[in-house]
Amino acid sequence: MKEVKVLRLGHRPSRDKRLTTHVGLVARALGADGIILDEKDPKIEKSIIDVAGRFGGDFSFGVEEKWRKLIKNWSGKTIHLSMYGQKIQELESELRKITDRLLIILGSEKVPGEVYEIADYNVAVTNQPHSEVAALAILLDRLYEGKKLEEEFDGELKIIPSEEDKIVKEKD
Amino acid sequence: MKEVKVLRLGHRPSRDKRLTTHVGLVARALGADGIILDEKDPKIEKSIIDVAGRFGGDFSFGVEEKWRKLIKNWSGKTIHLSMYGQKIQELESELRKITDRLLIILGSEKVPGEVYEIADYNVAVTNQPHSEVAALAILLDRLYEGKKLEEEFDGELKIIPSEEDKIVKEKD
Repeated sequence: MKEVKVLRLGHRPSRDKRLTTHVGLVARALGADGIILDEKDPKIEKSIIDVAGRFGGDFSFGVEEKWRKLIKNWSGKTIHLSMYGQKIQELESELRKITDRLLIILGSEKVPGEVYEIADYNVAVTNQPHSEVAALAILLDRLYEGKKLEEEFDGELKIIPSEEDKIVKEKD
Repeated sequence: MKEVKVLRLGHRPSRDKRLTTHVGLVARALGADGIILDEKDPKIEKSIIDVAGRFGGDFSFGVEEKWRKLIKNWSGKTIHLSMYGQKIQELESELRKITDRLLIILGSEKVPGEVYEIADYNVAVTNQPHSEVAALAILLDRLYEGKKLEEEFDGELKIIPSEEDKIVKEKD
């Protein structure tokens, strides 16, 4: 894939601050290139850009209120994550062959019905109700076949894996 | 594994309602047998039990304020998920060999240092800051080698995977 962006729909700054922040941080940590919200939220922008600034990597933050247009005009493929979709385990080998740009669409509570029609794929990570944060994590882990867990971000701060301690290394 | 429980530490009913609900639903959907909170929260209990009631499966909800004792006396193995831990990709084959009961410990913001010492394993899903919901999902997906995505829950409601529609089947 050339570029992977995550579009978070139905974000309500009053309610979804922490969940949308988690969506953004998971997108970054597991290999996406940026997140796009459908509504401005300077607090979330700040927390995500702040993590990316300290821990490294290129990760973009954008806002697009005209999200229908964004999906329809996306030059590449679009995957909508939903518990109503097709099983990820049956689609993942096809999805891994995508060489184009990829837009992953994540709703918050209820997603307008038209999203199901305009997305190229509706994909379910289990057909059980759980969490868009978890669905995104498993989709990315499987799309990249686990390789993004090895990624180095070359940031100012780096955590050194440890059996019992919390070790943070600062760049010289 | 005989039984897998998730212990959610540092839950604050005022702030963490939705994130902890996501933790519980992910635990259920991806193969754990129950969640234990370190503080009572009847609203979360109700939402998780409600989903389990409608969508099926056995999933327990518990509260244990003396969580240190719970971890120390756990008859089985304990895994603490933390971005400071050892890489999951290096530990997972060892973790899959656990035949005992398993307790997965998830913090919210800051986790007391002693948790790192009393847990059998400190495991990181990337050494980047992201989300305990995502870390739990990937740990369970890898522990079960994807098999829980095939699980049938035999509930009153069942979602039929679909390319474009939302199909919910009710039990006769």
